[in-house]
Amino acid sequence: MAGTDSSKKLELFPAPVVVLCEPQLGENIGTAARAMANFGLWDLRLVNPRDGWPSEKAKAAAAKADHVICRVQVFERLEEAIADLSLVLATTARKRDMFKPVMGPDEAASRMFTQISGGEKAGLLFGRERWGLNNEEITLADAIVTLPVEPAFASLNIAQAVLLLAYEWRRAAKKGEALPFEAEVGAPASKQEVSGMFAHLETALDEAGFFTVAEKRPSMVNNIRTMLGRADFNAQEVRTFRGIISSLERRHERQNPEGRKSAEEPGGNEGE
Amino acid sequence: MAGTDSSKKLELFPAPVVVLCEPQLGENIGTAARAMANFGLWDLRLVNPRDGWPSEKAKAAAAKADHVICRVQVFERLEEAIADLSLVLATTARKRDMFKPVMGPDEAASRMFTQISGGEKAGLLFGRERWGLNNEEITLADAIVTLPVEPAFASLNIAQAVLLLAYEWRRAAKKGEALPFEAEVGAPASKQEVSGMFAHLETALDEAGFFTVAEKRPSMVNNIRTMLGRADFNAQEVRTFRGIISSLERRHERQNPEGRKSAEEPGGNEGE
Repeated sequence: MAGTDSSKKLELFPAPVVVLCEPQLGENIGTAARAMANFGLWDLRLVNPRDGWPSEKAKAAAAKADHVICRVQVFERLEEAIADLSLVLATTARKRDMFKPVMGPDEAASRMFTQISGGEKAGLLFGRERWGLNNEEITLADAIVTLPVEPAFASLNIAQAVLLLAYEWRRAAKKGEALPFEAEVGAPASKQEVSGMFAHLETALDEAGFFTVAEKRPSMVNNIRTMLGRADFNAQEVRTFRGIISSLERRHERQNPEGRKSAEEPGGNEGE
Repeated sequence: MAGTDSSKKLELFPAPVVVLCEPQLGENIGTAARAMANFGLWDLRLVNPRDGWPSEKAKAAAAKADHVICRVQVFERLEEAIADLSLVLATTARKRDMFKPVMGPDEAASRMFTQISGGEKAGLLFGRERWGLNNEEITLADAIVTLPVEPAFASLNIAQAVLLLAYEWRRAAKKGEALPFEAEVGAPASKQEVSGMFAHLETALDEAGFFTVAEKRPSMVNNIRTMLGRADFNAQEVRTFRGIISSLERRHERQNPEGRKSAEEPGGNEGE
């Protein structure tokens, strides 16, 4: 469907960020950029693109989506790529054993619209061509988005998945009337604040010897991140939770005077 | 998004016909076939494909959508290609000076669904890569479908246009049906388990001296219950969280070897 109206000036409005994790082919980055441009998205971030950046192949495949290509940012780690976002949705076609909410593209678009209308940033994660996102990456997201494809023929390339989500975004964004009042939610926490909170908790748990079986640590960490991540803490709540961790860590310092009698009392954990 | 479930047998259900008018490149026929297959469409018709039919390039680009490729029918004239249909919608990104109804993809999908549910056949026309459908072709259609693209960047390739319409078709046809997979939630926690967890946490916090201002304790407790309650922990997660509390409470016992000198406190419980 040819039909760009060259009399229309391109304006960039707030829209979801697209993050491609370890894309392998420049062409796919380019076609994803083009799909974004079709529906008004423009902030494309790459985590470790296999063939480096900039990419002539990406530029050629983007078919004039130069305003997307010239703004591409490259990151080494996904955490950095999403640090300024407060809502992150991971696209996947496969069921994961993770306690994360799962939604379709329309619900995803309307969640992102609510967030972005409130002045926050939201983003969509897309995985590698071959095997998608890994579980550690999905753990960093607030929810999973999946597309209602034919189960016996589910393989979508990246640009197609980007296209469908971008299309739903535009539908949601152009639908546009706000409700008479909004839920009170507080200033959302950035992903950086949330990552800091998890790092704090995990360090505390390491020091406390919580992970008794070393090889189970990664999956337990994922589970803990998932279960707490679902609470969608706002910035104040992140601080509160970090206060809880610190406080529990320091408990013995306060308790010692009366609580614990040292040498004579080897195992009296009555407090529990 | 990799994820075809090879245990699912492909079944063909009544679905819209896709008609490509004078497609130029075999690749585009193939990618259109694949996009159809993603959302359960299978009847593809070509009017005068420039490079003839069959096409090895189309087959390669179809990425295993063989059930679509092997059913392709080729026609010399559009009238013949649509002879058995009772609803025909023409896709175009450009306004035409024609008194035809114009609809978006969602309305198009629901019109086709009504028709097909009634035992009729409906189809979508797509034009050439370069300039789309001509006015004579559009005249043969009942209505025009256009996609809500960014006007300053409206150029969609054929496969993308097919993908979006096929996606909307599946949404209309499968309304109310579940997504390919659902969220994993685990056995829900009873309110008693949740209350026990909160009591455990609050006791631990009291002992740790978390509530420094006594009169603020009730409102802080409410806030903590609210923020954690939102996570909607399942039964396993309640146990995990209680494990976290207990572990942090006992942290000093493990830390002792480095943290606090031993003559007074013999109990290094590494064995736990």
